[in-house]
Amino acid sequence: MTDYKQKYSELQELIENQIANSFLNIEQPDNLYIPIRYFLEAKGKRLRPVLTLIATGVVGGEIMKALQAAVSLEFLHNFTLIHDDIMDKSPIRRGRPTVHTKWDESVAILSGDLLLGIAFRKIIEDVPSDYYKEVLLTFTDAFVEVCEGQGFDIDFENRTDVSFEQYLLMIEKKTAKLIEKAMLVGGYIGNATPNQIEALKIIGQSLGIGFQLQDDLLDLTASVDKFGKEIGKDIREGKKTFLILQSKELFKDDLSINLLNKFFANKGLQDEEVFELINYMASYGVMAKAKEQINYYFKKAMTNLEKLPNNEYKDLLRYVIEKILQREY
Amino acid sequence: MTDYKQKYSELQELIENQIANSFLNIEQPDNLYIPIRYFLEAKGKRLRPVLTLIATGVVGGEIMKALQAAVSLEFLHNFTLIHDDIMDKSPIRRGRPTVHTKWDESVAILSGDLLLGIAFRKIIEDVPSDYYKEVLLTFTDAFVEVCEGQGFDIDFENRTDVSFEQYLLMIEKKTAKLIEKAMLVGGYIGNATPNQIEALKIIGQSLGIGFQLQDDLLDLTASVDKFGKEIGKDIREGKKTFLILQSKELFKDDLSINLLNKFFANKGLQDEEVFELINYMASYGVMAKAKEQINYYFKKAMTNLEKLPNNEYKDLLRYVIEKILQREY
Repeated sequence: MTDYKQKYSELQELIENQIANSFLNIEQPDNLYIPIRYFLEAKGKRLRPVLTLIATGVVGGEIMKALQAAVSLEFLHNFTLIHDDIMDKSPIRRGRPTVHTKWDESVAILSGDLLLGIAFRKIIEDVPSDYYKEVLLTFTDAFVEVCEGQGFDIDFENRTDVSFEQYLLMIEKKTAKLIEKAMLVGGYIGNATPNQIEALKIIGQSLGIGFQLQDDLLDLTASVDKFGKEIGKDIREGKKTFLILQSKELFKDDLSINLLNKFFANKGLQDEEVFELINYMASYGVMAKAKEQINYYFKKAMTNLEKLPNNEYKDLLRYVIEKILQREY
Repeated sequence: MTDYKQKYSELQELIENQIANSFLNIEQPDNLYIPIRYFLEAKGKRLRPVLTLIATGVVGGEIMKALQAAVSLEFLHNFTLIHDDIMDKSPIRRGRPTVHTKWDESVAILSGDLLLGIAFRKIIEDVPSDYYKEVLLTFTDAFVEVCEGQGFDIDFENRTDVSFEQYLLMIEKKTAKLIEKAMLVGGYIGNATPNQIEALKIIGQSLGIGFQLQDDLLDLTASVDKFGKEIGKDIREGKKTFLILQSKELFKDDLSINLLNKFFANKGLQDEEVFELINYMASYGVMAKAKEQINYYFKKAMTNLEKLPNNEYKDLLRYVIEKILQREY
């Protein structure tokens, strides 16, 4: 079992080395390249590029062929984080000051832009010509969709009438598409069959949506220790998560409805009210509903996993799906 | 002679139609697509995409094959303008409120990002596979260089020690590269020979640098009527243009040097001081020096023009070079 953790770390290390190799030359201007390096140094899970490598491997391709494309997907992801942090006015990311906080907004806008440019340059330089169009269009679609998703997200901030379907569309674009496209890029480079591509697409999508719903849920249930962040942050900040939208449908008594209306009116709640709301959510079965949904996506991913060839990458992919959709912190 | 103006307008119209056709489908979210359409509606000269078409035509290619790539270059240019306007805090562009002024910064960051995504999607979908790599890398290099150039530009704002060479490198990246790459993309799609590519490169570069120097100069000499903007805006705003850097080298007496130091210390000058500085510049021959430089780039472009085949597009390109580098407003 621990073998999988080890195998994941090995792929992660391939990614880290390739990221480091991307910035060996001294590039100018410093005021953009230093923030870019700073941001990339704070290593995340590297989930998306690892999924690219796994997708290449599972369909029988050479994972090294997908390495640069995988890193470009990680750069694309980091570009969105740098820009999102400006819009969300987030001071901290991965335990360190965000780019616009450490420097300023202009530097954050531009270093995000430049990182995206490097992502495109590297993937265009590297992708083998047999399937350049599929790979580049998939990569570009991920970029377009993530922008559209963030557009919906900032639009929803000022609305109280967001439906559950609209919320799903938003997280599909903002979070799931990049994960899905990361797997598709890997599949194309591994020369996957159309059926395998279809399976990778559904796995990626399910994993992406499930990942976000899990994130919403963990905001309310995880202990500070394990999760490393305060409980109910989304409620305090007025984020219209899956759980809030479910509460809107499920709450029946006046007290809980009034509190929910206060959340919408004030764009967030105070500390004690947060716990009150969480209690209402628990008693109306909102968390149970969320777990049900996550389970639905988990099963969908697992069913489609069976359509892929049996090999070590398939086992690793199963491990990743389990890790992500069944994590408790 | 007026034929050229007519011919330019025809190419411009091809571009306008293609831009309009790019947004025929109703796309969501509105909070990004409406600002994008709004920004593109304010028609500029469309210099870059017209140069792409001319470059394809002059080397004997079919200009319609380059139309989508040309429009992607215009989108790339507009993406840089939307983001630059945020950083420069510019309220007005092409006579209308800028995106971040009419909406807000988040919308401007994201709609710029999305427009860039559309630019990549369209050029990748469309570019013929024979030379996809050259075209896409050229396009991406333009994107990377323009970010680096803007990085230097915002860095220079806080420095008083910018050398003339550093200034040239900055405008080469920020302004000239996009014009140069627009011509190269056209050349590749027109299946240009290596010698023709080399000539197009030098013409684009000369035109780009000359264009920016001309812009710097016209800020001081154009009449409000013709140029449509106030004289000395760059000096008021503290921009370290070619003329300021030349002044630093040429000014000899204390009064003029003191005024220049005041410009650097206060990041700009007041109205009456602006005219005083312009007078010093005139008497020390700063404008003459600028005209000399512009003339150098003009001649370089013209010399290299002779390396291209004789045809109507060559005549049109000559007209454009003359128009841009010899304009007086």
